[in-house]
Amino acid sequence: MPAPHQPVEIREFPEPALEPGSMLLRTMLSEVCGTDVHLWHGRLAGVPYPIIPGHVSIGRVDKMRGPILAADGRAIREGDRIVFYDVHRTCGRCYACAVSGTPTKCASRKVYGITDSARDGLFGGWSEAIYLEPGVVSAVLPDSVSPEDYIGGGCGLITAVHAIDRAAIRLADRVLVQGTGAVGLCTIALARLSGASTIVAIGAPADRLDLARRMGATLTLDLDLSSEDTRRARVLDATGGRGVDVGIEAAGSPRAVEEGLTLICDGGRYVIAGHYTNAGASRINAHEHINRKHLEIRGCWGSEAGHFLRALTVLDMHAHAVPFRDIGARVYSLADINTALADAEAMRLPKALVDPARS
Amino acid sequence: MPAPHQPVEIREFPEPALEPGSMLLRTMLSEVCGTDVHLWHGRLAGVPYPIIPGHVSIGRVDKMRGPILAADGRAIREGDRIVFYDVHRTCGRCYACAVSGTPTKCASRKVYGITDSARDGLFGGWSEAIYLEPGVVSAVLPDSVSPEDYIGGGCGLITAVHAIDRAAIRLADRVLVQGTGAVGLCTIALARLSGASTIVAIGAPADRLDLARRMGATLTLDLDLSSEDTRRARVLDATGGRGVDVGIEAAGSPRAVEEGLTLICDGGRYVIAGHYTNAGASRINAHEHINRKHLEIRGCWGSEAGHFLRALTVLDMHAHAVPFRDIGARVYSLADINTALADAEAMRLPKALVDPARS
Amino acid sequence: MPAPHQPVEIREFPEPALEPGSMLLRTMLSEVCGTDVHLWHGRLAGVPYPIIPGHVSIGRVDKMRGPILAADGRAIREGDRIVFYDVHRTCGRCYACAVSGTPTKCASRKVYGITDSARDGLFGGWSEAIYLEPGVVSAVLPDSVSPEDYIGGGCGLITAVHAIDRAAIRLADRVLVQGTGAVGLCTIALARLSGASTIVAIGAPADRLDLARRMGATLTLDLDLSSEDTRRARVLDATGGRGVDVGIEAAGSPRAVEEGLTLICDGGRYVIAGHYTNAGASRINAHEHINRKHLEIRGCWGSEAGHFLRALTVLDMHAHAVPFRDIGARVYSLADINTALADAEAMRLPKALVDPARS
Amino acid sequence: MPAPHQPVEIREFPEPALEPGSMLLRTMLSEVCGTDVHLWHGRLAGVPYPIIPGHVSIGRVDKMRGPILAADGRAIREGDRIVFYDVHRTCGRCYACAVSGTPTKCASRKVYGITDSARDGLFGGWSEAIYLEPGVVSAVLPDSVSPEDYIGGGCGLITAVHAIDRAAIRLADRVLVQGTGAVGLCTIALARLSGASTIVAIGAPADRLDLARRMGATLTLDLDLSSEDTRRARVLDATGGRGVDVGIEAAGSPRAVEEGLTLICDGGRYVIAGHYTNAGASRINAHEHINRKHLEIRGCWGSEAGHFLRALTVLDMHAHAVPFRDIGARVYSLADINTALADAEAMRLPKALVDPARS
Repeated sequence: MPAPHQPVEIREFPEPALEPGSMLLRTMLSEVCGTDVHLWHGRLAGVPYPIIPGHVSIGRVDKMRGPILAADGRAIREGDRIVFYDVHRTCGRCYACAVSGTPTKCASRKVYGITDSARDGLFGGWSEAIYLEPGVVSAVLPDSVSPEDYIGGGCGLITAVHAIDRAAIRLADRVLVQGTGAVGLCTIALARLSGASTIVAIGAPADRLDLARRMGATLTLDLDLSSEDTRRARVLDATGGRGVDVGIEAAGSPRAVEEGLTLICDGGRYVIAGHYTNAGASRINAHEHINRKHLEIRGCWGSEAGHFLRALTVLDMHAHAVPFRDIGARVYSLADINTALADAEAMRLPKALVDPARS
Repeated sequence: MPAPHQPVEIREFPEPALEPGSMLLRTMLSEVCGTDVHLWHGRLAGVPYPIIPGHVSIGRVDKMRGPILAADGRAIREGDRIVFYDVHRTCGRCYACAVSGTPTKCASRKVYGITDSARDGLFGGWSEAIYLEPGVVSAVLPDSVSPEDYIGGGCGLITAVHAIDRAAIRLADRVLVQGTGAVGLCTIALARLSGASTIVAIGAPADRLDLARRMGATLTLDLDLSSEDTRRARVLDATGGRGVDVGIEAAGSPRAVEEGLTLICDGGRYVIAGHYTNAGASRINAHEHINRKHLEIRGCWGSEAGHFLRALTVLDMHAHAVPFRDIGARVYSLADINTALADAEAMRLPKALVDPARS
Repeated sequence: MPAPHQPVEIREFPEPALEPGSMLLRTMLSEVCGTDVHLWHGRLAGVPYPIIPGHVSIGRVDKMRGPILAADGRAIREGDRIVFYDVHRTCGRCYACAVSGTPTKCASRKVYGITDSARDGLFGGWSEAIYLEPGVVSAVLPDSVSPEDYIGGGCGLITAVHAIDRAAIRLADRVLVQGTGAVGLCTIALARLSGASTIVAIGAPADRLDLARRMGATLTLDLDLSSEDTRRARVLDATGGRGVDVGIEAAGSPRAVEEGLTLICDGGRYVIAGHYTNAGASRINAHEHINRKHLEIRGCWGSEAGHFLRALTVLDMHAHAVPFRDIGARVYSLADINTALADAEAMRLPKALVDPARS
Repeated sequence: MPAPHQPVEIREFPEPALEPGSMLLRTMLSEVCGTDVHLWHGRLAGVPYPIIPGHVSIGRVDKMRGPILAADGRAIREGDRIVFYDVHRTCGRCYACAVSGTPTKCASRKVYGITDSARDGLFGGWSEAIYLEPGVVSAVLPDSVSPEDYIGGGCGLITAVHAIDRAAIRLADRVLVQGTGAVGLCTIALARLSGASTIVAIGAPADRLDLARRMGATLTLDLDLSSEDTRRARVLDATGGRGVDVGIEAAGSPRAVEEGLTLICDGGRYVIAGHYTNAGASRINAHEHINRKHLEIRGCWGSEAGHFLRALTVLDMHAHAVPFRDIGARVYSLADINTALADAEAMRLPKALVDPARS
């Protein structure tokens, strides 16, 4: 991606020399996520274009200068299928890291596919090879999980693990998920796995709501085909007139925030996890929706290595039963990458995948 | 108070018969708080006018049908100076009480001075006598605390204890308090007593900001004499450019919520405790102020018996050093009660007190 | 139960007059739980013998003096299958209720089957009829749940909901449950439903461990057939050498506490939910097992109405798939009640049920 | 310190070459804390003797290879009085750092004065000069704080900030602190600053209890001159018969843990912060003191950079009024270091200070 709003180009790079503790992966699958669309639109500050996008990926170890230990302490070997936490550096010393306990806000954070220039190396998944520098948190993909399972969840699943932590769902809680993109769909599945009872999903279009039901939603409401009043009536009807205990916003729309707050019960929680770019302001009545309800609203930014590792455990246990792989709707070659980006931009599918080896 | 928007009248009531466990107090002081103004404006739903306002009060035991135990287990005696928790009934069985852990949202809650009709008895402090029904949570005022200390804090202090709990201030946190009415002033003092370092107060006019400093504020900003940009610059300057760790809104204004969220640091908390009536919507950018900041916003409604009891401990320890009494600016007789209400409505003073024995 | 250590007798009682808001249930099933054995051993203080034991029960509405609303707001009708929260009174005003947020520690708590004398009425489930006084938190059993499902979980399930809340399991956490009685078995199921990955159960004998696996345990260790060293090695092996994230003690043995603390990882949590009577002291090394591990240990006493209501939701969703009913191993008539008590005392089965209508 | 149980020797080291971002401090004051005694006894595993002890220290910038930013973002200059967080490396990637949120348990943690061999450089404060490697979290001591204030609190104050965080004291809580060494004395002061009401200190001898009162204790009990029964009666008397809301153990004795648990009220919290070495087991009755009390026990290990930085804020605000400096009872030269160590070992004073420039 040479610059915002310009077509992505295929370029050749020299094979990097391997430092001790580093490895070179032969990319199996990467993804096009909402962040990549934002990168293309130039909506993230400080990005050192040209970049190689693709922050969550899976690859096979082609070369390594070991020994290298995976996060669970086992030695990595050539040929292993490797996945890795995309944030490859945080400082551990700044106010965000050290004092406020919010490493996802560290100003020195480096993220594969986003913060490294293509001039500096193979730091992105839209490439035949990925350079894993020493110290990247990596793991061998469990045998029970296919590359399609992993990348179907992808960065959305990792974000969803963080959102579910912030939501602090109690057994039998009623949950609302707004948005049926990759983050929303994964959040629905994780809410189910966390013991939620009623799970209401609001989204569109029909095929995503169908997938939402297969991920675990007990009630789906089509944003395009229903009025806000109708949706409110349906949610109250499904929750004994009280509203849901927990709402999780994964839609990125100011309207979603306005609607979500009307659907939470007194004493409930509302997690805002979808506003990764500025989509404008919401009109919120602090009396009706926050103070009088004794509500709690929690922002949720980025994810930590622990979310990545726990996402792997979730996949290992549940990928056979939960259709994470169906989120990754279509696989594109590098030659078709601009089509993939256009399809993602138009939200024609929940997620476009990239297979750099495909011709 | 016969009805909304009508002058308060002085009426005679028969002396009530005392049930076992009840007592009759000779009122020493009561207060006119913001809720009373809202009652007068008819802005609270379901109020059974005519009512006797005055929800937080102090009185001396005139008659009692004992034995009656105070909340600390000691026996109450005639002549004791008694203060009591104004919420005299919650059901303990409903969803709010039993499931969501939010008894301040119980639909059966009965509150002195607000939810009982004057036809049902002496359930308010703007009266020479107050009937304490059996089971009201009551306490003997510590000897170290004067009636003026107690009623100076009054309901604002109890609300502030709840807000401070919700704020979960850590030692050395930097705190913003918006609003310099009774709740705001008490919150400033409690933030100081909870270990806050920098305490910024935004309010008006000058004499209240002076009192705010005496309550513990380290920086006061006059809402009427400064621009939002100036205030923001001052807050950033006082916090190393990061914003405060914790903000507490006690202003009741939609603009305060909009401004407050811009002044909190990444990973911070914001408590909304001042929106007891509907003052309209705030424009909030969920990306900038909640999601990207990984912020937490907490509504805070009403107070529980524990907040009342802990407020007494705070007064016992600190009333000699913290000028809670100065919040209660002026004492009115029952004959002047409409003047008191008008002064409170016009916010000419932080709090008007009522002494029913004064002629 | 006329007194500790004496055979339970069958007595006739007059039909109670119904106050407004009360109802009379025709008992369908009740249970013999560990508490009943303790009652029989005289190990609980202040019990007003003679009592009618049976604190968790299900019955059909025989007579009622309505209208009466269930906890979800719907009107109860004659013939409905009713279940109810056994704690029928707490004060809501004492230090435990009002200040420390621990209503299960209220000194005025009244519990069906435990704290009411048989002289005062039909307050227990080992009886053909149960008197539900006004205000008891009650619910209509969902159609999807059989009496056997409900009473199989019984009080153990409600206790387990509370223990799971205290455990605050995060998605993918590794969990240890000690004890395979009714509470332990239910806790295993709820840990699974809350998103635990590895679930280790330690208990005995073999048939209970078999049931533990069917409830969701991924690894079971027989307390009688393995050494502590072996168990420790197995747990470390199952958790990458770190120990479990969360341990829940439901065994009631001082040895269990000692062993449990050695199996938790750094930064983990340990919930003690099985020590309802005094079984003696545990030897705990505060350096090795608490301070150096940065551990958190949480006691868990009794349960609240919310736990009861959420247990019903869990049953409604999962009773078809989770074999709660298999915990209730055998049904006894009132004539055989002393045999039931003896079987429970000898722990010959996880739970004995009582069907007062059986002859 | 060449090896355990051997006299500390004075050695000469060459002046280190400065890497970019590093600096050399001229030591003003360092301390002898309990950890140093443990180091001398050889009770910490993996220490690479010979070492230069002294993990918390203050020094003046002698040379620097800048620019170097302090933690608050300001540029450090030669001549500044610098204090620094003794943990100079954690990995940020391991399970403790990345998943369980317990960086104080990171296996790669490097700590000044403890984990670095004297062969590797000047990594300890019992030395005329200290080498601050690049990236050490450092701060300029506020003008209002003297070196004696800072080192009086020293590592005990930083540990105490962590313990106070774990204790989550609410305004007006009653608090017990066990132990009147440096950690205990600092904890007393911080409990007071956090809004505690009653503060009971148990310790010895008389002069430390006197200092405890000056730090903020409202009741002191001499461990040597009172029986456990007497102490229990005094604590119950001071807390309305309930026991304290929060207990903090800073004594390091198994007996203290046993006693502490009997003094906490139902629903209370108990922080174990003093067991830094293995002093043997405590006998704890899980029924009486944990389960039935619905208690919470929290271990507290080490401290994070945030605790260090917030300790500085506390000193800046309160060192004029709280006698932290009086904890540092006596200053020793390097020539007298073995006497200092012997005095600390014998607990003849709360803390021995080291001034390497003193002859």
